[in-house]
Amino acid sequence: MEILKEALKNIGDLDEDAMQKAKERLDNLTKPKGSLGVLEDLAVKIAGIRGKIFNEFKKKIVVVMAGDHGVVEEGVSAYPQEVTPQMVLNFLSGGAAINVLARHEGAEIICVDVGMAVDVNHPRLVVKKVKKGTENMAKGPAMTREEAVRAIEVGIETAWEQIEAGADLIATGDMGIGNTTPSSAILSVYANEPLERLVGRGTGVSDARWQKKLNAIKRALEVNKPNPQDPVGVLAKVGGLEIGSIAGVILGAASRRVPVIIDGFISSAGALIASKIEPRSTQFMIASHLSQEPGHKIMLDLLGLEPMIFMKMRLGEGTGAVLAMNLVEAAIKIIREMATFDEAGVSKEVKK
Amino acid sequence: MEILKEALKNIGDLDEDAMQKAKERLDNLTKPKGSLGVLEDLAVKIAGIRGKIFNEFKKKIVVVMAGDHGVVEEGVSAYPQEVTPQMVLNFLSGGAAINVLARHEGAEIICVDVGMAVDVNHPRLVVKKVKKGTENMAKGPAMTREEAVRAIEVGIETAWEQIEAGADLIATGDMGIGNTTPSSAILSVYANEPLERLVGRGTGVSDARWQKKLNAIKRALEVNKPNPQDPVGVLAKVGGLEIGSIAGVILGAASRRVPVIIDGFISSAGALIASKIEPRSTQFMIASHLSQEPGHKIMLDLLGLEPMIFMKMRLGEGTGAVLAMNLVEAAIKIIREMATFDEAGVSKEVKK
Repeated sequence: MEILKEALKNIGDLDEDAMQKAKERLDNLTKPKGSLGVLEDLAVKIAGIRGKIFNEFKKKIVVVMAGDHGVVEEGVSAYPQEVTPQMVLNFLSGGAAINVLARHEGAEIICVDVGMAVDVNHPRLVVKKVKKGTENMAKGPAMTREEAVRAIEVGIETAWEQIEAGADLIATGDMGIGNTTPSSAILSVYANEPLERLVGRGTGVSDARWQKKLNAIKRALEVNKPNPQDPVGVLAKVGGLEIGSIAGVILGAASRRVPVIIDGFISSAGALIASKIEPRSTQFMIASHLSQEPGHKIMLDLLGLEPMIFMKMRLGEGTGAVLAMNLVEAAIKIIREMATFDEAGVSKEVKK
Repeated sequence: MEILKEALKNIGDLDEDAMQKAKERLDNLTKPKGSLGVLEDLAVKIAGIRGKIFNEFKKKIVVVMAGDHGVVEEGVSAYPQEVTPQMVLNFLSGGAAINVLARHEGAEIICVDVGMAVDVNHPRLVVKKVKKGTENMAKGPAMTREEAVRAIEVGIETAWEQIEAGADLIATGDMGIGNTTPSSAILSVYANEPLERLVGRGTGVSDARWQKKLNAIKRALEVNKPNPQDPVGVLAKVGGLEIGSIAGVILGAASRRVPVIIDGFISSAGALIASKIEPRSTQFMIASHLSQEPGHKIMLDLLGLEPMIFMKMRLGEGTGAVLAMNLVEAAIKIIREMATFDEAGVSKEVKK
């Protein structure tokens, strides 16, 4: 509990002065005002996060949180639970999509076991296991309140350790067979929409399996009665260990004023929990892509974030967030490297 | 006319066999089928363009076509015409947005004067001037049919020269004060929508100036009566020199089976002309971003292309196309570098 308290105490607001100066500089660069759209917004936001106009990223990382879900016994996923550790080993040996994309974008992968059902031995795996998979939320709480807090703190600790080691741009990622189910459950607590609109096909389930998923979430909500005013309670009752630790990575990054790029549906469920614990944390979040998962748009709207990449992806792992790193870096280079009207001898005056 | 004929003769179809093999490989990689969405579609498309599954890009370029527009005398733009050569000099000295983004993405800039009103002297400027700016299309044709063909051929020649020198991924870009006006006029010839929906604010004009722009386009359409069945005639009557040469770059790239990334509104107007001259050329096009210009979505729908980046940009120069290079490269790395289920020891079987 101390780590969470410490993080929350240090989450502040954006630096308005740096943002104002960034806006003024952007308006003097050789382009019509605002014509670079979200690239300009990002440059301003990062100035506000870092407290200065000119920034660079020296160490980009993606934190992939892995955990398992008791609710898979309800038949909510098309894949067996053994795929969670198999994919984690794939991450550690470099063959998964997130490896290819992280190499492409020059980012390092930090893979953390916060709650896999089985143990995996690998020198590069960070083991901070809170619990060997959650309980079946269709029958009772997924975890205790203490475990939920601990999962969040694993994320905060991981963010702090990585920032201490130089990380200055963090992307979130997840691995956990069945984890769109708790993500939809969390969303349903906060969204004013029928459950059918919030539950998708995950990695691609059949109609029959989708119905089982919907029923499992309905029962989880009936049995656990999560209270929206208590986000840690929501996480404990209908959440997941990796979702909690993604919330923690975000709170940890925000507390150290490091921008954090949110991946798709599962990462956004973590972001939603983080935003309900401390609303100011959303200021440090950057949305990446719009997932094919139908609830994702609703989730991003609740967070007040707009995605930049529309590629119908639905894999997770941090794949969308890592792709967005290229756009975030483009933004900080625009403000740092473009010529002003004076420098380039370009006419600035505009006819009304 | 010979160059255009030669290009058209060589525009074929995608290689179905290579695409089928690419799909099979993608389905064996360690991810649920189709879960990387458009990244997978791009990998398949590039296999079809290049005729093989595994590809890499050794030389990425963005071709920025510069031209002026007689219609600016109708008061359609907020910027004076002198900004066209000023910005071209800015491109050549490295201070513009396209320079920053091209450096960021590892692409080279080729800047071509196909029709600026004034001459610019610079060792790196490629001068292939067809005409010193178009005529005022509100009073008569923007150029002769011969000039329109020549503008297209400048684009084809440029693409061929660059491909000869090793370019294997080409992005289109534009510079020309006033060029959203002919772009909207071209769109209006092919879109079944009221003109008001096809005319935007360009780089940011006032209400009064927007009305002038709308009226100028209305008069241009009345005076010139462009015939949709004759795309070269449409280009001559209500188009622009840089728009024609962008169409040419696309036809030139397609004829050599090189993928070409289309930037925003002006580049898409060029793509629309190219697609009407030779519909098979659209198979070699990749859409990049959705421009803030309201007609852009309608234009991309006409081309059957879907944008990937939504960042409310409206600058042109090739800025959106160059950002998309990163996504296209990510796609070819996914198919080349990801592990298969067998290689990674991950369970492939899926429960129905």
